[in-house]
Amino acid sequence: MSEVLQGIRVLDLSRIFAGPDSAQMLGDLGADVIKVESPKGGDECRYLGVTKAELEKIGAPSPSFRSFNRNKRSIVLDLATDAGRDAVRRLMLRSDVVLNNFRPGTMERWGIGYDDLCTEHPGMIYCDFHAYGPVGPLADIGANDLALQAHSGLMSITGEEGGPPARAGSAIVDLHASLAIVSGVLAALFHRERTGEGQRLDTSLLLSSAHLMSYFYQDYWLTGNEHRRMGTANHLSVPNQAFPANDGYVVIIAPSDEMWRRLAAALDPETLGVETFRTASERLRLRKDVVEAISAITRGLSKHEIHAKLSRAKVNVSIVNGIGEATGHPQLEAVGGIFHHGDGERYVGTPFRLHKSPGRMTRGYPGLGEHTAEILSEAGFSEAEIEELSGEWK
Amino acid sequence: MSEVLQGIRVLDLSRIFAGPDSAQMLGDLGADVIKVESPKGGDECRYLGVTKAELEKIGAPSPSFRSFNRNKRSIVLDLATDAGRDAVRRLMLRSDVVLNNFRPGTMERWGIGYDDLCTEHPGMIYCDFHAYGPVGPLADIGANDLALQAHSGLMSITGEEGGPPARAGSAIVDLHASLAIVSGVLAALFHRERTGEGQRLDTSLLLSSAHLMSYFYQDYWLTGNEHRRMGTANHLSVPNQAFPANDGYVVIIAPSDEMWRRLAAALDPETLGVETFRTASERLRLRKDVVEAISAITRGLSKHEIHAKLSRAKVNVSIVNGIGEATGHPQLEAVGGIFHHGDGERYVGTPFRLHKSPGRMTRGYPGLGEHTAEILSEAGFSEAEIEELSGEWK
Repeated sequence: MSEVLQGIRVLDLSRIFAGPDSAQMLGDLGADVIKVESPKGGDECRYLGVTKAELEKIGAPSPSFRSFNRNKRSIVLDLATDAGRDAVRRLMLRSDVVLNNFRPGTMERWGIGYDDLCTEHPGMIYCDFHAYGPVGPLADIGANDLALQAHSGLMSITGEEGGPPARAGSAIVDLHASLAIVSGVLAALFHRERTGEGQRLDTSLLLSSAHLMSYFYQDYWLTGNEHRRMGTANHLSVPNQAFPANDGYVVIIAPSDEMWRRLAAALDPETLGVETFRTASERLRLRKDVVEAISAITRGLSKHEIHAKLSRAKVNVSIVNGIGEATGHPQLEAVGGIFHHGDGERYVGTPFRLHKSPGRMTRGYPGLGEHTAEILSEAGFSEAEIEELSGEWK
Repeated sequence: MSEVLQGIRVLDLSRIFAGPDSAQMLGDLGADVIKVESPKGGDECRYLGVTKAELEKIGAPSPSFRSFNRNKRSIVLDLATDAGRDAVRRLMLRSDVVLNNFRPGTMERWGIGYDDLCTEHPGMIYCDFHAYGPVGPLADIGANDLALQAHSGLMSITGEEGGPPARAGSAIVDLHASLAIVSGVLAALFHRERTGEGQRLDTSLLLSSAHLMSYFYQDYWLTGNEHRRMGTANHLSVPNQAFPANDGYVVIIAPSDEMWRRLAAALDPETLGVETFRTASERLRLRKDVVEAISAITRGLSKHEIHAKLSRAKVNVSIVNGIGEATGHPQLEAVGGIFHHGDGERYVGTPFRLHKSPGRMTRGYPGLGEHTAEILSEAGFSEAEIEELSGEWK
């Protein structure tokens, strides 16, 4: 057996980012993932964040849909109808894992909640994914990644010092939640393998954002410290931030006194090797002076010159890349972080690599409802039933 | 069996954030986690990001160490000595999972790499965690969370439009990598439960950062688009950003035309309900006008007034909280996201909840080497060996 999740069936009723991305990773590990989509255009992500002109150029679906939906088959079922819900129930009964991100109580209202099926299917692993979780004062408030960047306090520590709050530029809470779903589902599968017991689990954008903020919360609980925005800098040490080059920016991090000495020697022993900057606590106290002294040197050099000098001296350094530079760098390819598929298509791979049973890509993104008849037929639906269920949509 | 990882032994040789946090989550799930620390002060995180004055007030260790090291026991062993390395080897042979974040090749140089032990212990799950991964042009470059926010392009899309790059204020790449480790280890444990086979796995800050950026990379590969900084705004839809209140900020997200109509009705039908703003594509085109029209209204209201109006109208909204407000909000507690321990201590809990076998906290952070003798004794070391190994340090 070379695939971790060979023989595991996942029914994914979720949309947009976190749920689909988590199901994709389960598919990377070899699960048979079925994506249930609405007849009204399917997952909204198919058209998200892309202009009409771009869609005409690259064809549907959107780049983000392509990012989160490899290794899946798509079935269209209308959950607004009795027949659609009944079909989902039948598919759930033959699935090992069921994911959904409907508002709390929706699956129950449709008669396909965990409690409706768990007696008949005690091995089922059923995952709810919500914005703020299933209960509590915010359970019914709509939210997305940005809302949780705001609610969690992340935005209060992101951006320029004294300036307005900023967001982390990517949907990091959403994609972090995706890995929380994967972790929870794998934990439940391991538990079932040892005990025979399925179970319900849940996670949320809220839990994910709190995990990302956990050490700030701990700091606040213990000391009352409310850290604030510092641009690219960090309250932990100096230097630990971006510095200007003559053609962009680099980040330089030298937390230990030993690394600082190497930095000073590599960049300019005369101005940086001074006694006053030698200890971490003094560099913290003289933050402004240290930053100015380093900037005075880096401004005269190119990004690549600084990177070469400092990496040679074993000082932590990175170029602040644009997206083109980041994707063009050979490192991600070198570690197997890019999946190649079809005719030159590239996809960011599974974010961890098992050496005997690594994630892999066997299918591109599915067309809307592309596998409806195939999936229903496998599940024992009759020709007439298949016709009825797909006829409504086509 | 009520705990998912009951009977699973984890030997954690890692330091700072990602590795320790992942081992903590395995401990939350019931694993017996042993943290191996150096006699030279142990995990550097014990003193990280906290001033001497704060340490005197709250006592060691630092808030971040407390955040990432519950549910563990600590053993001090000196990997610079033959006796220390031999002790680690003996502990590895009785562990199900081994984690390390040394530079590539270090464990091998010490004779305790995967290949050194896998014949004798084929069921071992061995996880390497690196900055850029084990191979490739950047394998030997030092890096931290900030470096990967820079390298990945995340920093290029974070911050004010036209301003300098900013970092996401928390160590999101590190903590995302932590969940990647947990996912990889759980996948390997599931595989071993079904096949008897252990294996090596790895992940890195690089793979985690690429996962967080995956849809931007896909967009670039398909269209050549390099998105840039937009403050709190988003290229996906308008409004989808922070707006000023008279006492702070709120984020408002109304991607669909239906939600926009509800927003306009709730805030100001006269100025917002106009024909020109009715469709998503026009709101994108007239971004500046839409943002100004909303801001003109929100500036006159408090955060809580805006939140009440819009949540009542089923529009996605959140207050931009500071860290004190975020931790003080009752929602995280309501969903079981906070672990309580000891005398009023609070900790951010496991970021997913299994209903039959949820993560829980049984131990606070360990003192440096607190369990050295106990762990060695359990592992069958003699009194004399224990004396020799711990004598060197004490």
